[in-house]
Parts: sequence; structure tokens; C-alpha cells
Amino acid sequence: MAVKLEKNVAGRLVPDVVNGRESVPFNGVGGYRPEGRKAAPRIASCVDYPADGDKRVGSLREAFEKVGLADGMVLSTHHHLRNGDAVANAAFDSAAEMGLRDLMWFPSASFPVHANQIEHLDSGVIHHIEGSMNGPLGAYCSAGKMRGLGVLRSHGGRWQAIQDGEVHIDVAVIAAPAADAFGNANGLSGPAACGLLGFALADSIYAEKVIVVTDNLVPFPCLPWQIQGNNVDAVVEVSSIGDPSKIVSGTTRLTQSPDRRRIAELAARFCADAGIMRDGFSFQAGAGGTTLAFAIYLAELMRAQGVTARFARGGSTQHMVEMLDEGLIEYILDGQTFDLDGVRSMREDPRHQDTSPFTSYNFHGKGNFASMVDVAVLGATEVDLEFNGNVVTHSDGRLLHGIGGWQNCLASRCAMLLVPSFRDRIPVIVDEVTTLCGPGELIDVVVTERGIAINPLRQDILDAVAGSELPIRPIEDLKAELDRLCGVPAKPERSDDPVAVVKWVDGTVIDTVWRTG
Amino acid sequence: MAVKLEKNVAGRLVPDVVNGRESVPFNGVGGYRPEGRKAAPRIASCVDYPADGDKRVGSLREAFEKVGLADGMVLSTHHHLRNGDAVANAAFDSAAEMGLRDLMWFPSASFPVHANQIEHLDSGVIHHIEGSMNGPLGAYCSAGKMRGLGVLRSHGGRWQAIQDGEVHIDVAVIAAPAADAFGNANGLSGPAACGLLGFALADSIYAEKVIVVTDNLVPFPCLPWQIQGNNVDAVVEVSSIGDPSKIVSGTTRLTQSPDRRRIAELAARFCADAGIMRDGFSFQAGAGGTTLAFAIYLAELMRAQGVTARFARGGSTQHMVEMLDEGLIEYILDGQTFDLDGVRSMREDPRHQDTSPFTSYNFHGKGNFASMVDVAVLGATEVDLEFNGNVVTHSDGRLLHGIGGWQNCLASRCAMLLVPSFRDRIPVIVDEVTTLCGPGELIDVVVTERGIAINPLRQDILDAVAGSELPIRPIEDLKAELDRLCGVPAKPERSDDPVAVVKWVDGTVIDTVWRTG
Repeated sequence: MAVKLEKNVAGRLVPDVVNGRESVPFNGVGGYRPEGRKAAPRIASCVDYPADGDKRVGSLREAFEKVGLADGMVLSTHHHLRNGDAVANAAFDSAAEMGLRDLMWFPSASFPVHANQIEHLDSGVIHHIEGSMNGPLGAYCSAGKMRGLGVLRSHGGRWQAIQDGEVHIDVAVIAAPAADAFGNANGLSGPAACGLLGFALADSIYAEKVIVVTDNLVPFPCLPWQIQGNNVDAVVEVSSIGDPSKIVSGTTRLTQSPDRRRIAELAARFCADAGIMRDGFSFQAGAGGTTLAFAIYLAELMRAQGVTARFARGGSTQHMVEMLDEGLIEYILDGQTFDLDGVRSMREDPRHQDTSPFTSYNFHGKGNFASMVDVAVLGATEVDLEFNGNVVTHSDGRLLHGIGGWQNCLASRCAMLLVPSFRDRIPVIVDEVTTLCGPGELIDVVVTERGIAINPLRQDILDAVAGSELPIRPIEDLKAELDRLCGVPAKPERSDDPVAVVKWVDGTVIDTVWRTG
Repeated sequence: MAVKLEKNVAGRLVPDVVNGRESVPFNGVGGYRPEGRKAAPRIASCVDYPADGDKRVGSLREAFEKVGLADGMVLSTHHHLRNGDAVANAAFDSAAEMGLRDLMWFPSASFPVHANQIEHLDSGVIHHIEGSMNGPLGAYCSAGKMRGLGVLRSHGGRWQAIQDGEVHIDVAVIAAPAADAFGNANGLSGPAACGLLGFALADSIYAEKVIVVTDNLVPFPCLPWQIQGNNVDAVVEVSSIGDPSKIVSGTTRLTQSPDRRRIAELAARFCADAGIMRDGFSFQAGAGGTTLAFAIYLAELMRAQGVTARFARGGSTQHMVEMLDEGLIEYILDGQTFDLDGVRSMREDPRHQDTSPFTSYNFHGKGNFASMVDVAVLGATEVDLEFNGNVVTHSDGRLLHGIGGWQNCLASRCAMLLVPSFRDRIPVIVDEVTTLCGPGELIDVVVTERGIAINPLRQDILDAVAGSELPIRPIEDLKAELDRLCGVPAKPERSDDPVAVVKWVDGTVIDTVWRTG
């Protein structure tokens, strides 16, 4: 692959052209200013749509023919159905049947279930994927088998890329747990209920053509219209859009690892000691085992000290819903629901508000919610002595995870990484992260079971916890201890072939993922 | 005023250029197809907005200075505060203080309270108004005193004009009954509660700069965010945004006129006899005395026959809310709330859904709700033998009313005009309407106290009521009777000076309003 590489301000080699489009190298946090106007689809006319509002067509293939899906186009899907999704696979199966080629798949994320697309990559139906590639697709990309470069974006970065016209979606396919024949849709009911459809919102607004696929057609009006039928071209009824058991879990699982519980407890106590946990504060914690445990410890401390949060950012879980019901949280501003309690609460409780990457994360907006959050607890695969973070590759260089909202959440007033000291005897704290996903200046605290490291840039936080009994240590200290325990693993040699790039929240290229093996 | 005039397909003389912009003459219903892409504002960046989300500035003037309001720009406001609005006046008072000139005022509608702007038109602060001009501003425009042409658009046409880039809003000022410092806003609470802010939604999305003005600042998050703070540049706190007593009425007033009650009753019985009023049907009826009476008669018939409506389109009133509470209506899809019961219901009942001109009326969308409504009852100032309708001028040619959603509602399956036979001894049925606002092919039924006329184009409706005892008569018959009673008034001479144009729902020019006196 003949690509010119240049060093960005973070010292990372990045290609100057990504999939035929000039790319802007990362220029530091806040160092890039966008120009021009937002993208916009062609003007439609009611003349071309049925007056009775019934946009149903017989099949996905019929819908594709109606909207004119053609070779080389960009086809987008969303990931609210997670590993239970049946629609993205069906879409490319249909495209293959139609004999289409060289489509770009633009999912908001992909999951192991989407290994189905490997045959379409092999056969040429899919040219390449821009979107997170978890598991098998990541391995496929890592091995250099994809024709184009993977482009990894955060949830906010995906909105930014669509909004700024960096990615032009020709056809969006939106799996909808509930929809009417006009195309109004939501994720709140039906066998595949997933809560909300925020990850598909940009697609519905900016794509030229929008197809809603549902297994739960309801009479007009489908309320609330998380997706508005006025943006929709066609509605397809299918027997099932996904496997409910893999979309949401009935109950959220707490980590059983004593180390991870200790990390969670340290992080919660840190929030209390640093004065972050005070009346009216806000926090974001996901559904991972450790961050879930964090929220549970935090709730205990809040209860003990009589503190109420103004809002919490989801992904929501049963536990967060209980905090809302108990009054420990006044509002949940939710980007995705991880279990059925989350779905129910969002459906029934107006204080449980669905959000979108526009409201929450889009860096090319007039502000967003991420920077208004007092504390965000996140994971990482690696963190280095400069507090730089990696979430997409492992230390062996293999691409195995997406970015999700991780980069976006770094904008919070206190971004904390909750990480075990080592995984498979490989230390998590390294000299230099394999792939740079988040600049160290935005990562404020690293919490491990062996101690807490505070970014020296945050003297205010260091001061706030000066009297604390928590095991606060310089990151170099922590690293030295881990290196003594595990030894410093040899750095794997990297190839010179880029297989993917990592975008920063402003659309610039912050790092490259290289072919392994 | 040197403007070239040409005849459109309706035979109306219309200018080829409107306020310096080439205009497309009306080309028949569904006869014009838009080209190009939707408009879009410049891409913003979080770099330029406060990380803590606090966008408050000290005054409207400060906000104008911050966003760079300058001579010749377009400044928009909304009319949800109706005749109680204090913000549109304050905006132009501030602009005058700043010494600005030649602004275009782009309100979603204006009311008598906005007579305040006449001094700004006289002094040159406002160049001209594009938007409905009720009362004193209409008279001002009619008299030829405005420098530019008035442009009258329907609610849907206003969205279309903004979306299509026909009107580029530089600065939108949004009066908000509730807002947070980030700019999230709604109309549901506070002293100036007006229900929703749908008429300002296009402004918030498409304007370059957006200023929210509120007298009820609430802590973040202001929910629901009918206006999203992510589109907002600045928030201004003021002591009052309007006079509550003139924004909503405590109770909606039913007409006391026996003639109008008879019209309403005939119209309701017509819906029953024609089979329109059947389980799952939908209707739209406003808050005017006659249409309100219609809804009350309709409710009686529905109750008697055990019929339930799937949805009703607002403007909502206490009466419509009672129908929702009683179960006669399953959903209210509401464009504006006319009284406090409407506000409360919208705030508390998820079946009472706020809408926008995008969902309801925009003709340049992928369908809209208007054409899905079974029956819409509307008023008119004149209707002619071809069933053409006029809502903006009186028979003397004076511009006195806006279009509102009237043109948009003509798309319903059965559009009915409920009109008294004569006003001030002037017959409402005329040979030719003074100003053409709605093409006769879309107006299906005219109901007067002296009989009901059905458009001969609607043989299906004629058939449906063939056995009815209702006084169904040819429109020529009705007109002849009125002419016998009142005499045919002399047609007023019209000047050759256009003072305003009337746009059709697709942005084409359907007619011209001429200077009078």
C-alpha cells in the first residue's frame, strides 16, 4: 500500500491520505478548527412519497432497489442491537444477492456476530469498513486483509465525520424495535427492544436515503419518534431484527475479581476524597464489570454522605436505574441501555432521557455534554508514563476494540482510567502506548489495584486529595513495581503497513494501526 | 417599484424577483420539483464554547455583539408567545440602540403587539418583514410603506424556505419559557409557558447563530429539550419574556353565534354521514370559535356512535385535551397549545406529542403528517366558484391575516372550509378570490350556515353523502342565494404595485398582494 506517512504533533506516523481522501494529522487538543458548512442531503419533495404515509416495501432488497443502492456506495448501520443484530448482516447478504460490489460499510460499531461480513469482504461486496471492529473483523483488518484502511472513530467523531461531510452516507439501514409505516421509529418496545436509537440519528438526518427495518410495526404514530419518519424513504417488515438475548442482558453482571472490585472501590473513594462527589455533581460510568462496581461503591458513599447527583450519563444498567428510583440521581442522560431495566426506565420515566452523539459528544457542535460531566470512569488496554491512553489495540499491536465514547469522555472535568495493573502478566502501564487514542493531557487519574496515579498537570486534583489516605503514587512508581513483578515484555516489531487509522474527536488522524502477522 | 410581472399557471400576476431573489411562479399542485441540497450552517467547534456549558451573557445587546449581528442581516423570531410576546420587540429595540440598519425580520408570525416594529420600519432598522403580518403590520404593508416585499408563507412553507436555503437566517432569537444555561429549552413551564417551541425549531437548526432568551432559567438539563442547546450560541436571562394573559387563555371560548354553531354542527354531521368519522380516523381542528364548536359536536357524535380517533392534530385546547383524557382520541399531535390545559397535558401526558412544521407540514420532506389526516376543518376570508380559497386579504384587498398551517392542511384527505355566508354583508363566496392562497382542487367541501357545497372533483365524497339529509347544494346555488340577499359588491380597484407575495407550500409564488390606498 503506497501511502505517504507524516508525523503528527504527537509524534505518531500517520498517512496523509485515507481511503482516497486527504487527511489532517492530529494537531493537538483543540488545535484544529473546522471550516465550511455542514453536510446536507438532497432536498426531497412530498410529490415523491405516498400521501397516506405508507412507505412499506416487501423486502430489504426491494428497498435497496427503490432507493438505488449501487456499486461503491456507503451503507450505514447502527449497533444498538449489539451482538444480537441481524440487520447489518442481512443488508450485506441482500447486497451480495443483488451482485453489488465495493460498498463501504459504515457501522456505528461492529460485534462478533458481524463476522458474517468477512465473506463479503473476501468476495468484494464490501470494499472496507469504517467503524469500530471488535473481535473477528478487527483480526481480519489487523492481518492486512481489507482493501481499504479501517477508520476508527469515537461515537462523537462518527457524528462529526457525517456532519462535516467527511463521510457521505448513501443509504442508511436502521434496525428499529418499533416503527410505523411512515418510518417513525424507536427502540423502546417489541421483542428486540434496545432502548434508544441515538447512534442511528445522524444517519437518519444526513444520509441520502434511509431504510427502516422492523419486526414490530405499530400503527401511526409510533411514539416517541426517536427516528423521524420525515427522514425515511422506505420501511421493511421482517420476522426478526435480532436475538433479544444478545441485545440486552436481563441482569448486569458485577465483576467477581477482587482486584477489579478494589479498583472500583478506590476510584469511588477517590471521587469522595477529591470533593468531586458533592451535591449536584455528575458522573459517567459504563456497564463494564469494573465501572459498574464503581457506581455501586459510589452509590454507597453518596447514600452515607447524603449526596445527590444532578445527572448521570449512561450506558444505563439496572443499578443506575435503581439510583434514579432511589433519588440518588436526578436524571439519567443515556446513550445506550445495557439491560432490560434500562429499557423499561427509559420508556416509562421522563427523567431517563435518551441522548445522541450530537448532544453528548459531537466536538464540532456548539458545546456538548461530555465536558460538563464532573467525572468519567473509563477503561484502557494501555496507559503510558505521559498518561496517554490506548483502547483499540493490545500490546501485540492487534486491533481488537472500538473507541466507543471513550475519547469523547476524556473531555470531562476528571477523566479516570480504571485498569488492572496487568493482564495475562503484561503490565498495563507502559513506556509508550502501542496506539495513541487519547492524549495524556486529558487523562487525569489512573486507578489500579496497586495505587492511584494523578496526572501532574492536575495540581488542583493533587491538592484536593493531599490529606487523603488513598494509595496515591507517581505513575513511574507504579510502573516500576509492575515491571519488577512481570518483567518488561519485549516490544513487538511492527510492520510498515497501515491497516487502520484512529481519528481524534475533531476528525484529525491521531495514530495508525499497523498490520500484524 | 420596478418589478417584472408574469402570469403563473393559476392566471395570477406574480413578480419574477422577490426581494432581490429570483422567484419561481406557481406551477400547479405538485408541479414543481426542488433541486439541490438542503441548507446548512457553518461547522462549529467546541473550542469556541465554554467547557462548562454556561453560555449566559448579560443582555440581548451583548448577545447580538457576541454573535456579530450586523446591518442587512436576517433576524428571526417565533410566535408561540402570540400577542403576549415581548422578545421580538425587545430584539429590534436592542438592534436600534446598536444603530443597526436594514435588518430583515423573519418571524414565524406577527401579532398586533408587534406594532412596535413600525417605528423600526420607519427609521430603517428593519428593511422589510417576511412572515405573516396580522393587524397593524398588515395594514402598514398594504399601504405600501414597507421597503421590501412582504413574503407570506405557511408554517410548512417557512420550514421549506429555511431548509431549502431560500431564507438564510443569520441570527435566531428564541423566546424560551424554560431554558438552562447551555441553551436547552422548552415551552412547558415558567410564567410564560406556551407548550412547545416547534415554530422555532428550524431556526435553531439552520440559523448561523442562535440566542435563547428566557425568564425561567433552570439547572441543566432542561428537559425535554425541544430546542437543543447544542445548536445555541448564547443564553440571555430577562425578567419577563411576555405577558402570560396574552400568550394562552385560561379557557377557550366557544362561539356564541347561532350561525357559526350551525356551521360547526353541519360540518360534524357531514364527517359522520360521509363515513370520515370512523374508528381510527384522524382530524385537525383549530381553536377558532367555529372549529372549536365543530370539535365539540364531533365529540358528541363520536361518543354516540362509539368511535375513537387515532389522532387529532392541534392547536390544542381544553376541549381536545378532554377528548384525550376521555379516550375519544388516542394521541394529540400538536403544533401549538392554545390554553393552559393544552400546556399541562403536553407537559404531563406522553400521548400529547409536540410536533414541528418539519414533521407536520414541510412539503420538501419525505412526506409529512398533513396528507395523512382524514379531515381538516379550516376558515377562509373568501372562497370562489372554483373552490379556490383566500385567507390573507379581505375583499377590499387589504392584507390582514397570515396563512398559518392553512395551506398545509389542504393536503388532508378532506379539506373543509367552515365559513359564514357573509361578513359585514359581504358574501364570502365570490366569483374569484381577491388573493389566491389555496388552489380549488385541494378544497373539498365548503360549509356555510345555508348549506354545504362539495367540490365536483370529489365524486367519492358526493357518492358517500348521496343519501344524507344534510343541505348539500352546488356552490353556484349558494352563491346565487347570497348575491340575492346582499347584492354583489363592486370589486375594489387594485393598484399595480405589489406589496407582498403569497408563496405556495413548495416555495413557488401563487399570488401577489397589491397596494391598497
